[in-house]
Amino acid sequence: MFAPLQNDTFLRACLRQATDYTPVWLMRQAGRYLPEYRASRAKAGSFMGLATSPDYATEVTLQPLERYPLDAAILFSDILTVPDAMGLGLSFALGEGPRFATPVRDEAAVAKLQVPDMEKLRYVFDAVTSIRKALNGRVPLIGFSGSPWTLACYMVEGAGSDDYRLVKTMLYQRPDLMHKMLAINADAVAAYLNAQIEAGAQAVMIFDSWGGVLADAAFQTFSLAYTQRVLKQLKRSHDGVTIPRLVFTKGGGLWLEKMAELDCEVLGLDWTVNLAQARQRVGARMALQGNLDPNVLFASPAQIETEAASVLESFGTPHMDTRSSGPTHIFNLGHGISQHTPPESVEVLVRAIHSYSRRMRTGTPH
Amino acid sequence: MFAPLQNDTFLRACLRQATDYTPVWLMRQAGRYLPEYRASRAKAGSFMGLATSPDYATEVTLQPLERYPLDAAILFSDILTVPDAMGLGLSFALGEGPRFATPVRDEAAVAKLQVPDMEKLRYVFDAVTSIRKALNGRVPLIGFSGSPWTLACYMVEGAGSDDYRLVKTMLYQRPDLMHKMLAINADAVAAYLNAQIEAGAQAVMIFDSWGGVLADAAFQTFSLAYTQRVLKQLKRSHDGVTIPRLVFTKGGGLWLEKMAELDCEVLGLDWTVNLAQARQRVGARMALQGNLDPNVLFASPAQIETEAASVLESFGTPHMDTRSSGPTHIFNLGHGISQHTPPESVEVLVRAIHSYSRRMRTGTPH
Repeated sequence: MFAPLQNDTFLRACLRQATDYTPVWLMRQAGRYLPEYRASRAKAGSFMGLATSPDYATEVTLQPLERYPLDAAILFSDILTVPDAMGLGLSFALGEGPRFATPVRDEAAVAKLQVPDMEKLRYVFDAVTSIRKALNGRVPLIGFSGSPWTLACYMVEGAGSDDYRLVKTMLYQRPDLMHKMLAINADAVAAYLNAQIEAGAQAVMIFDSWGGVLADAAFQTFSLAYTQRVLKQLKRSHDGVTIPRLVFTKGGGLWLEKMAELDCEVLGLDWTVNLAQARQRVGARMALQGNLDPNVLFASPAQIETEAASVLESFGTPHMDTRSSGPTHIFNLGHGISQHTPPESVEVLVRAIHSYSRRMRTGTPH
Repeated sequence: MFAPLQNDTFLRACLRQATDYTPVWLMRQAGRYLPEYRASRAKAGSFMGLATSPDYATEVTLQPLERYPLDAAILFSDILTVPDAMGLGLSFALGEGPRFATPVRDEAAVAKLQVPDMEKLRYVFDAVTSIRKALNGRVPLIGFSGSPWTLACYMVEGAGSDDYRLVKTMLYQRPDLMHKMLAINADAVAAYLNAQIEAGAQAVMIFDSWGGVLADAAFQTFSLAYTQRVLKQLKRSHDGVTIPRLVFTKGGGLWLEKMAELDCEVLGLDWTVNLAQARQRVGARMALQGNLDPNVLFASPAQIETEAASVLESFGTPHMDTRSSGPTHIFNLGHGISQHTPPESVEVLVRAIHSYSRRMRTGTPH
């Protein structure tokens, strides 16, 4: 059904297999910093107009790949599609973040929640298949979802928040309701990601964007446990090919030892984490992904190259024995790319990662 | 000049001396959650109207002490008084955060910066003396300042930010300018805190509210080094009494080993940090302060008591040998108290900390 994969560097690194260079992709790589994205969005009329149309989603997913030699594509979509399918009424007001018409704030609202009919998310799975076909085997396609806790933040707050007061009030006041919501979210996310895998996603990533706002202990109980509940339900392979699972908790650096126990292949790290220390704390069981500060892309080309090299050096020499598995690194930003990024900076970064990491493998980085 | 101190529990804990119970105070304890504060603010007309009037600052600083048996008072002021005195034009638009009329965004603006004449901050030092007199020895008074990096964030951004793009662009693009600004900020903060000590502050705290947004390595270079530059210049004692120095980096949990090398007595911790692990990582050289999630105060009294006890248990049994110094704990929130907090919750919390920590010391917590 799909063309054979030509560049498997990203998938190999996910599975801790040796690669000729460090693969690179960027969170939110299809986005507002690209003029062609802004043109597509203008045609589609809105962000959700893009995300709900398989044709537009395909068009914008491929845009960064036309410009840069990236090693993976990621589905263009939103992390809030699942609660939208639960009937919460997602909208994006102009110039603002997402908003739910009917947030989940009491026992009655939680009682009404259920795993949505996946048919309501058909547009996402159709987009996955359409993108996979359009990629024609160039690079693998990553599917994704928000984590159960991150979805719960938006479902309770109804919008972005700077103190997470409403969702944490429910957590501390009514932990029973919070657990009930998180269990439903976890099962919904698992079904959603499995359907993406069946539609053609070659790896899946869980974004725990708001895990880092939780207190120690609360993180383990209310975020990590439900991420694990998702992971345990995910298909390990499809059509005989292994499907790597990536987990990214923004602000989760303090909990790496706990995250290393997750049933997944790759941990994403934000820029506050020292990669050498992370490699030591996580051990050889997982690949690491990250973690350049996206604001480095506002510096000069020479400074971008220096900072990119120092992320690679911080991880250190990756695994290079093709006969066995070992620690590997996937380069990424520590968070989504800024809409203000000069597109030329991304070109500099991707080329720097490829060439410097090749030279590291031959012992001649400088 | 000032009445003798009646409750030295906080100061003793800062200096790692044994105490009968764990002292408690709350960041932003004089604030909008108190109806009497809102009344004072209405009379004063604005936040800066309160902060610039020694009489009003005294009135609101003492308000939480009238309600709760807190073990310290903290100067009512703003972290941005220093850049305001540098001529940047601080204002607070209604319902918004602080804003600077002339942010510092280029070489010319940095060239104009200098350590301000401390006479421009006389209203702060007058407030310190007035509060210290009004306290009449009940509890010690803490003075404070923003850290050099945190001040730089506001000085460059001109207001709050969610991505710190402008200040980080300067950091990565023109590290020379950033270093120049941070050196000036550090010397200004040191002069400011020393003047607070001379005016009557019995401890001083540096709030590195935005240190946690920096990448690993950048934090050490652009925040920690300049916090250290402040600390090295601070008076160690005044009128023959030791002045403890506290440093709080929000989101700094990953860097505790580095922070343990600071020339200060107490490290403040946010709620993401596990206190038992922090105690191990920091060692016996410093006291720890923190770290309850302020959102716990939205739960029921019984739940507040449980969460408070679990913070105390997480730190573990404090030092109890009155003849030597050892690890001690000062209870606080992991961040400023929310304006939406029910005042009754604070009563429950403070009493729970006092009684539970007394029982821990006699080995009968339950």
